[in-house]
Amino acid sequence: MTPSASTAAALPALDVAGRIDHLRALFPEAGIDALFVTRLVNIRYLTGFTGSAGLLLVGPDEVLFVTDGRYKDQSADQLAAAGVPARIEISGTEQKRIVHDAAQATGYGRVGLEAHGVTWSQQRGFASEWFPAAELVATEGLVEGLRRVKDPGEVARIRAACGIADTAFANVAGHLADRPTELEFGLELEFEMRRLGASAMSFEPIVAAGPNGAKPHARPSDRRIGPGELLVLDFGCIVDGYCSDMTRTVSVGDPGPEARRMYEVVLESQQAGRDAVRQGVEAAAVDKACRDVIAEAGWADAFLHGTGHGVGLEIHEDPRVSATGRGTLAAGYVVTVEPGVYLTGIGGVRIEDTVVVTPDGCDVLTASPKDLVL
Amino acid sequence: MTPSASTAAALPALDVAGRIDHLRALFPEAGIDALFVTRLVNIRYLTGFTGSAGLLLVGPDEVLFVTDGRYKDQSADQLAAAGVPARIEISGTEQKRIVHDAAQATGYGRVGLEAHGVTWSQQRGFASEWFPAAELVATEGLVEGLRRVKDPGEVARIRAACGIADTAFANVAGHLADRPTELEFGLELEFEMRRLGASAMSFEPIVAAGPNGAKPHARPSDRRIGPGELLVLDFGCIVDGYCSDMTRTVSVGDPGPEARRMYEVVLESQQAGRDAVRQGVEAAAVDKACRDVIAEAGWADAFLHGTGHGVGLEIHEDPRVSATGRGTLAAGYVVTVEPGVYLTGIGGVRIEDTVVVTPDGCDVLTASPKDLVL
Repeated sequence: MTPSASTAAALPALDVAGRIDHLRALFPEAGIDALFVTRLVNIRYLTGFTGSAGLLLVGPDEVLFVTDGRYKDQSADQLAAAGVPARIEISGTEQKRIVHDAAQATGYGRVGLEAHGVTWSQQRGFASEWFPAAELVATEGLVEGLRRVKDPGEVARIRAACGIADTAFANVAGHLADRPTELEFGLELEFEMRRLGASAMSFEPIVAAGPNGAKPHARPSDRRIGPGELLVLDFGCIVDGYCSDMTRTVSVGDPGPEARRMYEVVLESQQAGRDAVRQGVEAAAVDKACRDVIAEAGWADAFLHGTGHGVGLEIHEDPRVSATGRGTLAAGYVVTVEPGVYLTGIGGVRIEDTVVVTPDGCDVLTASPKDLVL
Repeated sequence: MTPSASTAAALPALDVAGRIDHLRALFPEAGIDALFVTRLVNIRYLTGFTGSAGLLLVGPDEVLFVTDGRYKDQSADQLAAAGVPARIEISGTEQKRIVHDAAQATGYGRVGLEAHGVTWSQQRGFASEWFPAAELVATEGLVEGLRRVKDPGEVARIRAACGIADTAFANVAGHLADRPTELEFGLELEFEMRRLGASAMSFEPIVAAGPNGAKPHARPSDRRIGPGELLVLDFGCIVDGYCSDMTRTVSVGDPGPEARRMYEVVLESQQAGRDAVRQGVEAAAVDKACRDVIAEAGWADAFLHGTGHGVGLEIHEDPRVSATGRGTLAAGYVVTVEPGVYLTGIGGVRIEDTVVVTPDGCDVLTASPKDLVL
């Protein structure tokens, strides 16, 4: 086995140091003096800290990081390695007082709080006890917005996760001939990704055969995967915090003319979507490129979801690539392109790649072949 | 492989039907007319619904369940099987209007909202758009309080999860002689639990050898597990939604006199804790029973955490079994008893069982042997 720690050690360093300044540049428009970052994934992005508990108060000139005794050495090491000049305070019981005193001392008037990242219960406590002298401002997606553009170190991690998924699929695909159940094959795929160094799955693999494939979010069942059935496989894994995402649809033996036609249409749609991706294009235009091909084939109503989403530290992140997705794609965004056709009682076809947006188009990070018949 | 769906099918039915009435009985003291349940784990407990998206509005006489098209059939089947008489509405885009109209029609004045279960962002939307005519009341732990007492079907699931963990450990323990790394052995343990029918892990297994064992929440590393080292193994799995939790400390070969003494003290402490568990006893008294044994040995400061916690649909739930834990244990509570001693630079010993509280004592659900030396 190749443990994940070794995989991570071979990856290029992340470019963490400048991220807090990029965040600060957003403060004026957000109308805040400071941001109290509570979402761990955002703390990881801003500081390099990978522990399971921490709080980050980013002011205009100072940064306070608070965690508990479990992470004393780790937080000092990781923030130093990332070049983040924060004051680190370690406490299990005095975190409220530490943050309160820091906010009082600096006199922040308006403190941003990630409205999607705190519970209502937490917000009530923060308002009354942690920041009694400040006005808490609900912010949405400030750090998440920064996270859309991936630096080379981030792309390398997503690429590594995609590579593990590709290799795992190649290693276990032959077992489909033995008619495993969906659950059995899902476990094989997962175990193989873990053996190859993934620290975890990006999400529970989707292994949906025959009619189950008509449900875009089916969960693996005891159903045996039969010959000539469309089989939707949607899976991904995590390397050093970063996710991969890929879908392939296959069949053991010929699935018949209607399924072949579904496959050809979705393959063409997915290629059209990839061809549409480039810096400056509207996210909605990529969705339209996919959707037009499927509509022309008469299956507009059978494409039940958006075309894609951003991928990074989270499996679903900004931007959305859908008919209602706003904004344009920028170089360095990592997004999925995953059109599908789902026919109730018959089955589904979905084909998905994870790609990096470039000035001229995109780099495709998922490399598994797109052959329908195994 | 024995897939998890088969395991679940062999378990006795859960006693779901009466839970909503038990919840309603709490409304007067909470000062609410209705509760808007957003935590999925609580919705599962109250209705039997196991999907990944749903909302539940419980009024004095009526129940509204809302989910999206993916769960049309599943929600109807599961609520009917559980005997929950709810109005089910299916919509992807109209959920706000459906809930709004239901609340308007019934005229709820005070609607409880799970303050730990919604984000601040959600609460703001619910207040202004979903329930504009009602006062939203922050509730804490209403459903979680009910969930403390497990019915026989719930205990059977936890027992099944504990049994899988026991079997998996017995099956892979022999491989420790081959000096695997912590990561490798953690993967083996996990794969074996999954092969035996667990749907997932309760948490990432802790496999902490030598000095790593001195950190109660260490994560598995590339470190090889050497002979004569204390090895802390803390792991559990999920069967039909219910978690197990167990810790064993072992050594391949004799770990020496100090480690043996640590082990004997923790073993005695854990036995004292189990002996203290029975219906009506203070949770804090169980903690004290464990702590006194360790203090007498001179290691009071080396027992770095509380004695235990409730286990059920979540790996950590009410009650807390600690020095500051309030309240008494009731029959049907399922809790862990897990004292430990951690000596920096040397290692750790923790021994943990999951037990069901009974009128006279407790039933121990985790059955792996407690032999230090393998």
